[in-house]
Amino acid sequence: MPIITLTTDFGTKDPSVGAVKGAIYSELKEATVVDISHQIDAFNIAQTAYVINNSYKSFPEGTIHIIGVDSELNKENKHIALLLDHHYFICPDNGIIAMLASKIKPEKIVEINIHDAFSTSFPVLDIFVKAACHIARGGTLEVIGKSIVSFKNAVELSPIVNKEKTEIKANIIYIDNYGNLITNITQTLMNEIGRERPFEISARGYTFTKIFSKYSDIVNFDIPKAQRQNDGKKLAIYNSCGHLELAIYRSNLKTVGGAADLFGLKYRDRVSIKFY
Amino acid sequence: MPIITLTTDFGTKDPSVGAVKGAIYSELKEATVVDISHQIDAFNIAQTAYVINNSYKSFPEGTIHIIGVDSELNKENKHIALLLDHHYFICPDNGIIAMLASKIKPEKIVEINIHDAFSTSFPVLDIFVKAACHIARGGTLEVIGKSIVSFKNAVELSPIVNKEKTEIKANIIYIDNYGNLITNITQTLMNEIGRERPFEISARGYTFTKIFSKYSDIVNFDIPKAQRQNDGKKLAIYNSCGHLELAIYRSNLKTVGGAADLFGLKYRDRVSIKFY
Amino acid sequence: MPIITLTTDFGTKDPSVGAVKGAIYSELKEATVVDISHQIDAFNIAQTAYVINNSYKSFPEGTIHIIGVDSELNKENKHIALLLDHHYFICPDNGIIAMLASKIKPEKIVEINIHDAFSTSFPVLDIFVKAACHIARGGTLEVIGKSIVSFKNAVELSPIVNKEKTEIKANIIYIDNYGNLITNITQTLMNEIGRERPFEISARGYTFTKIFSKYSDIVNFDIPKAQRQNDGKKLAIYNSCGHLELAIYRSNLKTVGGAADLFGLKYRDRVSIKFY
Repeated sequence: MPIITLTTDFGTKDPSVGAVKGAIYSELKEATVVDISHQIDAFNIAQTAYVINNSYKSFPEGTIHIIGVDSELNKENKHIALLLDHHYFICPDNGIIAMLASKIKPEKIVEINIHDAFSTSFPVLDIFVKAACHIARGGTLEVIGKSIVSFKNAVELSPIVNKEKTEIKANIIYIDNYGNLITNITQTLMNEIGRERPFEISARGYTFTKIFSKYSDIVNFDIPKAQRQNDGKKLAIYNSCGHLELAIYRSNLKTVGGAADLFGLKYRDRVSIKFY
Repeated sequence: MPIITLTTDFGTKDPSVGAVKGAIYSELKEATVVDISHQIDAFNIAQTAYVINNSYKSFPEGTIHIIGVDSELNKENKHIALLLDHHYFICPDNGIIAMLASKIKPEKIVEINIHDAFSTSFPVLDIFVKAACHIARGGTLEVIGKSIVSFKNAVELSPIVNKEKTEIKANIIYIDNYGNLITNITQTLMNEIGRERPFEISARGYTFTKIFSKYSDIVNFDIPKAQRQNDGKKLAIYNSCGHLELAIYRSNLKTVGGAADLFGLKYRDRVSIKFY
Repeated sequence: MPIITLTTDFGTKDPSVGAVKGAIYSELKEATVVDISHQIDAFNIAQTAYVINNSYKSFPEGTIHIIGVDSELNKENKHIALLLDHHYFICPDNGIIAMLASKIKPEKIVEINIHDAFSTSFPVLDIFVKAACHIARGGTLEVIGKSIVSFKNAVELSPIVNKEKTEIKANIIYIDNYGNLITNITQTLMNEIGRERPFEISARGYTFTKIFSKYSDIVNFDIPKAQRQNDGKKLAIYNSCGHLELAIYRSNLKTVGGAADLFGLKYRDRVSIKFY
């Protein structure tokens, strides 16, 4: 029986997540339900895409991912189910899929049409769970919807490379649990455009000319431990998702603050890279 | 094997939730344990009742619900186990059950008496887990307690209808993850008292004469998307639990704020409805 | 199949926890994965040790505990796997184990050497999951690492007893979900040193001469309920983990505040006990 994952902006205080899990177990006694996150900022599609993009691949092929962010059904927000990269996704057609599918094309998409006449104000519970359980039991997408070929595009923040390939203009797309700033520049893009040239990353007055592959690479282990002063140092790093990240070494949001505070940067802010 | 759910005010930082789950798996290797919420405000019984009431029904019949809020055993706070609406509940007799059982009467209630002589300061771990696992293995309530017929009443906030049936005085009973304000008026009560008469809902200077059935019903889809100004608009809606809710369209607690902030309303505050 | 537990400082917003769970299910379809906590303060080893120490014992023997706090591999921070008290732990050698093993010696410890040549910035996903699944399938520690005998010591906060055994100098080691202050004095130490002598606990000007065994022991049930004024009262208690705790009766962080605020005490602050 495939796994069903949940990614929502419901939070974990309200009855919503419990109700959804109960509904899954009521349909599929032997289900394995896994929370990816319920802490997505309300209605934040870009954040949802980042979280899904950087977690779904580690699940087994055939896993069914329910995405409950901004999922109210209306004439501009249809419900869709799709097969992409050997995983199933059930979500609103609000741009999330465009962000997930920017590299990989979906193999099949349907617009879900199992809705009853009545309008529901909790479609994840009433519709997405039914769709997920149908797929988990081995059912096909065609039974729960009609095939469509396109999906809504999203005005995604994409890095812009100038014509001379001497500069990339990028953005902060996510701030993580430690307050570190994640950009939309991947290591792949950096290698492709940079071709090993020296570079300078600038963000609000701060500059970096080196990108580390792990945090502790900034530490000089030859200096006795008591004399090192690394905590709180700013650095650029490729994070575990392969994105360029501006970080604070051993940041702590409760004491020294995280990168977002210390750099004075927030979601969507500009980060630029010049090559020489 | 039935599901065991957990609803507590333990939070998810401390060792408590892990310890309770470990204890369940130690007794029942094949248990399915599902978190409903661990984010109940400390000792808040009304909030607990709202969360349980709006999630338990979606679980399969026979599910066992452990409620760990204000559960310390003392002479005024007994531990009880009961069968209600085909679900089992294990909880303190502190008024929660009165709130759950306001419509549906329990089929059977026992006062749990499997306590050892020693007093425990963690009854959910030491007593509730044992009771839940006993029921999960098919054991009867009589084995873990002695039958009782009454349970502690709670001074629950109930809507008051005047004699002429021209007004309902209601209260805010819950503020959800999006900051929206949930009242103790259900759609059923509204239909029963209102009988399709026009009405005016008032809450701290704000008034509403319409109740939507989903959030996006306030959107006029004929206006081009760029020209619409719905975000942040106040509205009244029946939420997915069937309660009248005062909401902000696409509220975001981190940016524009939620209904609780914008209306200046909090738990217990008055909402009134007049019929004409 | 043994249970795999997770204790990290990842938070529940980022893709990290989902990615780790997906990786476990990809290796072990039938795994039972249990969250202990993902809310450890960033890099806080003492907090991690407190949470693990007070939850692992309730899991069945043979359970595998992944600890992902400060786990980046470098020359001063090796990865280890060990068997201790019939439980397996996979963690960095950063002092956590010294805190867990202060009473009980590990039966076997290995330094994990299944790392590929490449350096990973997400060792919990890339290394710890592999090690855990190997053990879960019945594999031995020797296959994933080489035996070692010592592990890194931690400068743990330990209570200091004076030579005359008339005073214990202790510290706040943890602040729980209710804001209560937990010290490093256990009931066992208290009994051993105190030998039933009268005592006075002092913390920042507040004193206590009695330690309760449960919160409601401060209530005088002979006084009619409406006339009691216990809420918000300070008390000393042995908590459910057997530690001396300074608490507020029915504290609520959102209203009256918790013990940490009311006492003006924080992590590491001094608590002393004098015996007469």
